[in-house]
Amino acid sequence: MTTLRIADGQYLTPEMTAETGDVLVDQESGEILAVGDIDDADETLDATGCVVIPGLVNAHTHAAMTLLRGYADDEPLETWLREHVWPVEAELTSEDVRTGTELAACEMIRSGTTAFCDMYFHEPEVAAVVERAGLRALLGQGIVTVGKSDEEAAADVERGIRFAREYRDGSENGETGPRDAENESESESRSEHESSRGDRVRTACMPHSLTTVGDDAIDECVAAARDLDVPIHYHANETHAEVEPIVDEHGTRPLEYADERGLLGDRDFLAHGVHLDDGEIDLLAERGTGVVHCPASNTKLASGMAPIQDLLDAGVTVGIGTDGAASNNDLDLFDELRDAAMLGKLVAEDASAMAAPRVLEAATRGGAELLGFDSGLIEPGGNADLAVVDFSAPHLTPVHDSVSHLVYAARGSDVRHTICDGKVLMRNRELTTLNEEAIRTEAEERATALVERAENG
Amino acid sequence: MTTLRIADGQYLTPEMTAETGDVLVDQESGEILAVGDIDDADETLDATGCVVIPGLVNAHTHAAMTLLRGYADDEPLETWLREHVWPVEAELTSEDVRTGTELAACEMIRSGTTAFCDMYFHEPEVAAVVERAGLRALLGQGIVTVGKSDEEAAADVERGIRFAREYRDGSENGETGPRDAENESESESRSEHESSRGDRVRTACMPHSLTTVGDDAIDECVAAARDLDVPIHYHANETHAEVEPIVDEHGTRPLEYADERGLLGDRDFLAHGVHLDDGEIDLLAERGTGVVHCPASNTKLASGMAPIQDLLDAGVTVGIGTDGAASNNDLDLFDELRDAAMLGKLVAEDASAMAAPRVLEAATRGGAELLGFDSGLIEPGGNADLAVVDFSAPHLTPVHDSVSHLVYAARGSDVRHTICDGKVLMRNRELTTLNEEAIRTEAEERATALVERAENG
Repeated sequence: MTTLRIADGQYLTPEMTAETGDVLVDQESGEILAVGDIDDADETLDATGCVVIPGLVNAHTHAAMTLLRGYADDEPLETWLREHVWPVEAELTSEDVRTGTELAACEMIRSGTTAFCDMYFHEPEVAAVVERAGLRALLGQGIVTVGKSDEEAAADVERGIRFAREYRDGSENGETGPRDAENESESESRSEHESSRGDRVRTACMPHSLTTVGDDAIDECVAAARDLDVPIHYHANETHAEVEPIVDEHGTRPLEYADERGLLGDRDFLAHGVHLDDGEIDLLAERGTGVVHCPASNTKLASGMAPIQDLLDAGVTVGIGTDGAASNNDLDLFDELRDAAMLGKLVAEDASAMAAPRVLEAATRGGAELLGFDSGLIEPGGNADLAVVDFSAPHLTPVHDSVSHLVYAARGSDVRHTICDGKVLMRNRELTTLNEEAIRTEAEERATALVERAENG
Repeated sequence: MTTLRIADGQYLTPEMTAETGDVLVDQESGEILAVGDIDDADETLDATGCVVIPGLVNAHTHAAMTLLRGYADDEPLETWLREHVWPVEAELTSEDVRTGTELAACEMIRSGTTAFCDMYFHEPEVAAVVERAGLRALLGQGIVTVGKSDEEAAADVERGIRFAREYRDGSENGETGPRDAENESESESRSEHESSRGDRVRTACMPHSLTTVGDDAIDECVAAARDLDVPIHYHANETHAEVEPIVDEHGTRPLEYADERGLLGDRDFLAHGVHLDDGEIDLLAERGTGVVHCPASNTKLASGMAPIQDLLDAGVTVGIGTDGAASNNDLDLFDELRDAAMLGKLVAEDASAMAAPRVLEAATRGGAELLGFDSGLIEPGGNADLAVVDFSAPHLTPVHDSVSHLVYAARGSDVRHTICDGKVLMRNRELTTLNEEAIRTEAEERATALVERAENG
């Protein structure tokens, strides 16, 4: 056992208060050992003037879209997708995805994010970057069938399910191997699900959305996810254009249709949920299905404001995500904390809605629960996934309320150290696992070449 | 003449494009001398990997409210004001205002803001801080008469007008002295108004709002502002509670009432303008009256979303403000750039609304125009008020579009150097005019004591 003491600062308790005390971590097992007065450790990380918080969980993103950051902004959603994003994505190579994900990893570690959920292409590359960067992630190959030939569609479904199967325990040849049959056949709820300590990469089946994947393909995804004992993650009710066709075709609200297809399992979760009616909110609560709130993306694309306080009030597990950098335009979850609190008040027409502690909970334990990791709380026994936020700055002075500062005034650049699975991924603003300069250079080159291919190809 | 060359980076042109080239500044006159290829200068400031932009203009704030940052969040507006903010403000001393404004100045310089408009109490203290910090500001003592005795109300009006008169040329014993009578009697439009180079502090008459200042007091303010040749700045149409009482009492929309009272001059400008009807937007455009958009404050207090693209389309001059830190909770205008672009799309239900260049214009030349300073553009002859933004970071990689990055992805902590009036106020993230550590310590002490007085008083 090699211990690490995060020393001389404050830490955020599960009750969302900042208490003076150290956090002791086992760097080998990746576990939090103790909090409070700690005398001794093998290594010490200075947290003077800081508040140690659970690492933030980016519960919905498309990491490699960092390569498209600032490409084609200020366009209506349909034009943006059809004329800009999709043509570029059609040119993406696995090397592009690797570099874009590395860039995303640099950005996430720098801004205190320790776990993320990724839906994109070339996911084996993403898994390799996650392993190397030291982050934790739930990964899925995005599956799309609408608009494709039968052969292409079948290949897409097969690719998505194969990835979910082969990488579900960390890597193609993972140390832990497939789960035994008994576990696989059990229907465990999210909270009962076994702890994930040690395996930093997990997988899900990720049919892209209710309108871009056909009925049969959805059925295949659901069957595979249940068989593999992995969650299902998909986009739903993001825009009116994702609601109306389903109402027209099936005569039901989108989440009633999702329920019929078996997509509302108690470990499944959807992204966005902007346009939900009360019946759909109740249905989510009843089924135990989670929602990832992506306030910045929903605002930048003019999609609308999700009824996020209503979801929490109904008992739905809510996480927070950045969505891809192209509709954000960064992966700094501190922006989303602020956005979730503020837009939550605006949509509720009530300045007391989405209070700071509720938002911070969603971005930590809420997201961790959705992704299936035992992270998101600073307490002995949990994963040592932590961000050390430096309050020694004018914009975080005075301190009437630490949680308020974390939500409304802090930004990613205030994170001094980032720890995941007990390992220090950033120390005093220096990354320890990734070569940031080389990644930035390659990302700039690849992004330029990618856009050129798309525009001239 | 002592020249300063901001070297080896890019600079933002008035056409909102980033061009490679240096910016040459006269540190004595505070003027931009040249842009492009510059060979020689007395001093050099490195801008490698950076984009030099006009210093941001915070066109509406209450700077000393930094002392209340994070105090009483997540409260409905009326409770927040009546039970928390006003009782604390009643205890504010001039030393509190000095310290709170110093803290605000640290924060603004650190995040690339070079000019601000302040409406608060003890404004002579604010003027002194602005002089010392090296910033530029339009200042006004907030005037409130409703709910006060006749004597108190008269004293408030008198104090506001006296400050506007005595400090309008920089300080009580300003070098430039009062303007001559000929100038004072002229009715100059904003654009025709004489250049302000050299005088960093200017004043305005600032009746607090249309509902907190009585008719007679408003009339006195208007007469004094015209006599002193200073603008009028006030809150209007922020919430429904600022609209309905006027409709009920006067039978007109608030801005029709403001027009009757003479408050819609072509150098005057109001803060917020959330709830405006089409007639009011036309009236603002017709009169040449400006609007300061405060998107974060309007969202956090659940006030609503201002029709900001409509105002620009109508030809209204728009600036951007943070409002006080208590409803924000910081003074980093980069947050407001992002908020203005994003919420502008949401309220317009159009992702192409409030495109990044329009937002950046509002926060630079728009705000400078409202405050009456010849700043906000990088071109020879203008004020050398500049922020040097460092793009060498993962969250600003790759660079498809610099203006997009400035609006959607950059944050105050990306500013490497800040220059105002030709002087370097921050060099490599180190403040040159203010002792940040001492200010932070005093702010923490004073904020604690202030709240204790208010809560136990």
